[in-house]
Amino acid sequence: MHGAVLYAPHDVRVEDRPDPVIEEPTDAIIRLVATCICGSDLWPYRGADEVPAPRPMGHEYVGVVEEVGDAVTTLEPGMFVVGSFWASDNTCEICRSGYQSGCVNRVLMATIGTQSQLARIPLADGTLVPTPESPEPDLVPSLLAASDVLGTGWFGADAAEAGPGKTVVVVGDGAVGLCAVLAARHFGADRIVAMSRHPTRQELARHFGATDIIVERGEAGVARIRELTGGLGAHSVVEAVGTQESMVQAIRSTRPGGHVGFVGLAHDVALPGDELFESLVHLHGGPAPVRRYLPELIRLIVERRIDPGKVFDLILPLDAAAEGYRAMDERRAVKVLLTPDGGVPWAA
Amino acid sequence: MHGAVLYAPHDVRVEDRPDPVIEEPTDAIIRLVATCICGSDLWPYRGADEVPAPRPMGHEYVGVVEEVGDAVTTLEPGMFVVGSFWASDNTCEICRSGYQSGCVNRVLMATIGTQSQLARIPLADGTLVPTPESPEPDLVPSLLAASDVLGTGWFGADAAEAGPGKTVVVVGDGAVGLCAVLAARHFGADRIVAMSRHPTRQELARHFGATDIIVERGEAGVARIRELTGGLGAHSVVEAVGTQESMVQAIRSTRPGGHVGFVGLAHDVALPGDELFESLVHLHGGPAPVRRYLPELIRLIVERRIDPGKVFDLILPLDAAAEGYRAMDERRAVKVLLTPDGGVPWAA
Repeated sequence: MHGAVLYAPHDVRVEDRPDPVIEEPTDAIIRLVATCICGSDLWPYRGADEVPAPRPMGHEYVGVVEEVGDAVTTLEPGMFVVGSFWASDNTCEICRSGYQSGCVNRVLMATIGTQSQLARIPLADGTLVPTPESPEPDLVPSLLAASDVLGTGWFGADAAEAGPGKTVVVVGDGAVGLCAVLAARHFGADRIVAMSRHPTRQELARHFGATDIIVERGEAGVARIRELTGGLGAHSVVEAVGTQESMVQAIRSTRPGGHVGFVGLAHDVALPGDELFESLVHLHGGPAPVRRYLPELIRLIVERRIDPGKVFDLILPLDAAAEGYRAMDERRAVKVLLTPDGGVPWAA
Repeated sequence: MHGAVLYAPHDVRVEDRPDPVIEEPTDAIIRLVATCICGSDLWPYRGADEVPAPRPMGHEYVGVVEEVGDAVTTLEPGMFVVGSFWASDNTCEICRSGYQSGCVNRVLMATIGTQSQLARIPLADGTLVPTPESPEPDLVPSLLAASDVLGTGWFGADAAEAGPGKTVVVVGDGAVGLCAVLAARHFGADRIVAMSRHPTRQELARHFGATDIIVERGEAGVARIRELTGGLGAHSVVEAVGTQESMVQAIRSTRPGGHVGFVGLAHDVALPGDELFESLVHLHGGPAPVRRYLPELIRLIVERRIDPGKVFDLILPLDAAAEGYRAMDERRAVKVLLTPDGGVPWAA
């Protein structure tokens, strides 16, 4: 099969890799219908993470079950499934508490790679959620978004306790931030402020439910949020970047007793303890337990109540993954969808 | 009047200071019945905070109203009152949300000093809570504890979401940590683990409701918590120290999705963002909104359902404050109560 492999910073190649096989009786093999490139893939792509050896890439996926291991009971070949970037058993105490991304048996899909034609999914019963029936083709991008960026934005808005009567600020206008806007609207927030200086992303943020756009960043951005909120700060702030600046900006934009949901993969962040202490905010985040939300997200997508697939603004064949990475690295694309078979039925 | 003043590290003097007067119509003057020395007073005492000029000390207090300003409507001379270390209006949007320590008009009592015979209390209607009647003398230490250490431990346990079905760990065996044990018991926690290596503090922790004592610290302490919790970590951890080591220990002792309530005044803490991200914990804390809890705490004390006054293990006349600081600095005392008039009616 074909699969994307990162050899070194800025060197992604799609090459022939061995077809995956069932390794554990709880595994499934899926044939990818669509996969994509994540903002977090850019960390190793840009050299911020070391790449000591060539590594398969990708952790987002929707596909059709091809084969299941002997212990798999809820899935069978032919089912259309959505999974998350952490494979999880969905039965341990941590999973049952809603934190499948902290599952005691979890497997990081990024170590397997899903920018490929086939993929082995560990803990398949716990990880994969089938759609009610084979989805209409135009729903595929939204279902793929549910695999990570939608689920992550949803978790960010949930962790920030977005809801009625609240002003919600989203720091970061990547796909996760935009999906957090969508989630905040779904949760009924009164006012949703997207921090963005990119016209196309601003437009999508408004489509997803943003009521205000703020172009300033850092201290100037914090000052604008204070102006909007009678000097108090927002009730809820979603941090969807992962840098020191964005984390501090998020905390400073939040009122005492407010909630920061942080879902940007933290890189070189050291939170000043005294400032966090004085801020009186709630802080919650981390790798999103997307599996918790998948059944509801799939339902909302199939009922056409949300359309997160709009975050994909560039569709390429898997074999052109290198161009997809370049487009995201240069911020020419918000998010790149890759079609393993090269066809794009839903874009017709 | 007499009042304690810090001149330099390890140099506390009780000296004649001017009697306070009503400065704002919302002020009250109280005559202290009891005051005390806080663990956080040790930061400047030990030189960890700069002391550019002599500063009055103390921020915990119970007393009798002596005089009120023209705008004060709920208090009158003769009432026995308890207040917190942040004076707050209790009417602004932040106060109404339960975060009086973030009140938009707040005044830090430590800038006024309450280790004294009289004290001016700003925003008196919002700040001071009268007891139902003049309390029996033996309740005074518990009511004084409510002014800070009990309210702070209570907030820590509340922020950590201590409750039925949960294992709660308390890091720190000072008065705040011990009161967090008491609060966790009140909230109905199943198992309460006090981290302490001091026999007398262990004994008080058990009296307040600790079911387990762990003497190890740092990584060894984390390993013991993991052993006790099936490898998962505790549901709730209260951090009541404020150092880098204790904060990291608290986070590492908490399971994914669990809650850390941090109430130790943070000094030179920088939280590693990647570790916080991967931990999936909730983090909430800061200067406790004691005012939120005061009515309930006073009720529980007056009904003799809790006895937090036991944290005071040394009682001295105000004029001997310097000895009180030494005793706490050298950990000879958990917490020192000071009697402004030198008498100790409840200890008879």
